[in-house]
Amino acid sequence: MKKYYLGIDIGGTNLRFGIVDESGAIESEDFRSFPLKINELTQDYCATPEDITSGTDLDRSISDSGTKRQIKFVIENLRCFLEKNVRYNISGIGVGVAGQINEKTGGIVFSPNLNWRNVPLKTILERKTGLKVHVVNDLTAITYGEWKCGAGIGEDNILCIFVGTGIGSGIVTDGRLLSGCSGAAGEIGHTIIVSGGRGCACGNRGCLEAYAGGWGMAEIAKERALRDRVGFKEIIKIAGKIDSISAETIAKAYYTGDNSAAKLVKETGIYLADGVISAVNLMNPCVLILGGGVIDGIPDLFNTVAEEVGKRALKAAISNLKILKPTLSRNSGIIGAAGIANRN
Amino acid sequence: MKKYYLGIDIGGTNLRFGIVDESGAIESEDFRSFPLKINELTQDYCATPEDITSGTDLDRSISDSGTKRQIKFVIENLRCFLEKNVRYNISGIGVGVAGQINEKTGGIVFSPNLNWRNVPLKTILERKTGLKVHVVNDLTAITYGEWKCGAGIGEDNILCIFVGTGIGSGIVTDGRLLSGCSGAAGEIGHTIIVSGGRGCACGNRGCLEAYAGGWGMAEIAKERALRDRVGFKEIIKIAGKIDSISAETIAKAYYTGDNSAAKLVKETGIYLADGVISAVNLMNPCVLILGGGVIDGIPDLFNTVAEEVGKRALKAAISNLKILKPTLSRNSGIIGAAGIANRN
Repeated sequence: MKKYYLGIDIGGTNLRFGIVDESGAIESEDFRSFPLKINELTQDYCATPEDITSGTDLDRSISDSGTKRQIKFVIENLRCFLEKNVRYNISGIGVGVAGQINEKTGGIVFSPNLNWRNVPLKTILERKTGLKVHVVNDLTAITYGEWKCGAGIGEDNILCIFVGTGIGSGIVTDGRLLSGCSGAAGEIGHTIIVSGGRGCACGNRGCLEAYAGGWGMAEIAKERALRDRVGFKEIIKIAGKIDSISAETIAKAYYTGDNSAAKLVKETGIYLADGVISAVNLMNPCVLILGGGVIDGIPDLFNTVAEEVGKRALKAAISNLKILKPTLSRNSGIIGAAGIANRN
Repeated sequence: MKKYYLGIDIGGTNLRFGIVDESGAIESEDFRSFPLKINELTQDYCATPEDITSGTDLDRSISDSGTKRQIKFVIENLRCFLEKNVRYNISGIGVGVAGQINEKTGGIVFSPNLNWRNVPLKTILERKTGLKVHVVNDLTAITYGEWKCGAGIGEDNILCIFVGTGIGSGIVTDGRLLSGCSGAAGEIGHTIIVSGGRGCACGNRGCLEAYAGGWGMAEIAKERALRDRVGFKEIIKIAGKIDSISAETIAKAYYTGDNSAAKLVKETGIYLADGVISAVNLMNPCVLILGGGVIDGIPDLFNTVAEEVGKRALKAAISNLKILKPTLSRNSGIIGAAGIANRN
């Protein structure tokens, strides 16, 4: 009988499910907006608000009610997805979650995007499904997907960077996914590119994502807009108000030809390249995969980074380097998570 | 019969030889100042200036006369060292060289410290000795030595950083020495810590070693001394003249309690920590080994970096991190190079 694996991608903005075969092909998929906003629940789905909020059997170790509600949302949607796909013989579940994961216990240590702390996700999902569950960082799953089925096929040294609200990466060294000492490898968003610079959510200063992550770009734009409402009028108009400026707003203004947005995007590209060059010089990968929501929204950033890396990284470090876009689109996370479940 | 390996460490300031057994113990060793200053040749050594400059059989591919003279110096000293140690059954030679190495061909692509370009060192030494030769980057050799016989014994994820004139590192990931795609991994000295900052010898701006390497510290001190001769009078006095200020001068002034040196050293420690934190966040090593001539000269730098990493790196990335000094002292390079010869 053909074997299938269930991949789950719990990101900052979407919850994705996919039934994936051993070759990485998706047989069935679904997604929901995430984190949960209860009034956004679609009617055509089996998990109603009542299902989600009325249960009381959830692991006692989750004390935060918001987290508990979100976990219930995940469980209920997973149940429905499995019910709709009973014809597949599922051998295991892989889950990628945006945040710091303890890969040994399968618990989520902390997810800043979801605001989850100490969630024993593997234990919860194994109990609910009776299947073996592997929980990894979302970028680990994405990197595994792109490595086995996407832009990095056949390569042994890969650096896969995704620029979204934050900036994360996954690393393959010598043909193995790098976990690091405590499963925390890949935090390229917290590379210091400006010593003593802008404050970062991590508590440090000058981190890459404080300059070139979606949140960092938005903060910089908001500060500038407050000082220069005229120059930023196009960006403010698109956002509605200064406080609502986001990376998406900047992207929209950029593609209307707005000068302030163009300057911001150019600077973001340089900053992003600074962090990428540091990592390339340190690790000497064969393939650099650069993707994520911010890059999808402003594809010119990809070109700026590629150009800057070519100009400024050590010649020895880039003599064999290929700089590529991810090829699995939004499915890299579920394909990768399923692949990790298969591997284990 | 017991097997021995010959380890050679060709650094920016010394040429070291060692006969090393399979356990990493040194049976016999010797060293010479390097790069060659002909009038520094010691009389008690078999390689005289005539030996070194009169030969004409050296590989035609080395066109630079200075490089050729230095290579002859290496060969002659190697010959003498082997003659003195004929009682050892040497199974192979490992060489660590400060610079970019093509590990496949054993050629030196470029060594900025020695000013060597395209030197087919493996071919030359194999022809001269009849033994199998492995050539690696000096930090790769040092890291291998510290991993197998020093501070990193038994560890699978190590970042070994040496601060000398420049700053280099060696990396062990998942129990394997990381070469990278073209043998160039480990160039932590070219991590960008100040976007658009000080010019670096590599052509880029803002590199770690332009701030915290021996040459970077000296440049900063010279610039400041030119602007503030009074504040820098102690440093200038020790150096003799502004142009002669070096990391050693700064170290001496620092330990006399000089304020300008103290400020410089404090700043250097912060910059060094910036680069170290970036690498630790990215790679999540279990062990960080921090050594090299500048750290040996100013041990307080080690403490500053350890403290800053503890305060500013991601908690997840340092939850199991040990920060250690190298334990093999100046022998890590020869022990490591011999070990690499043994492994291959």
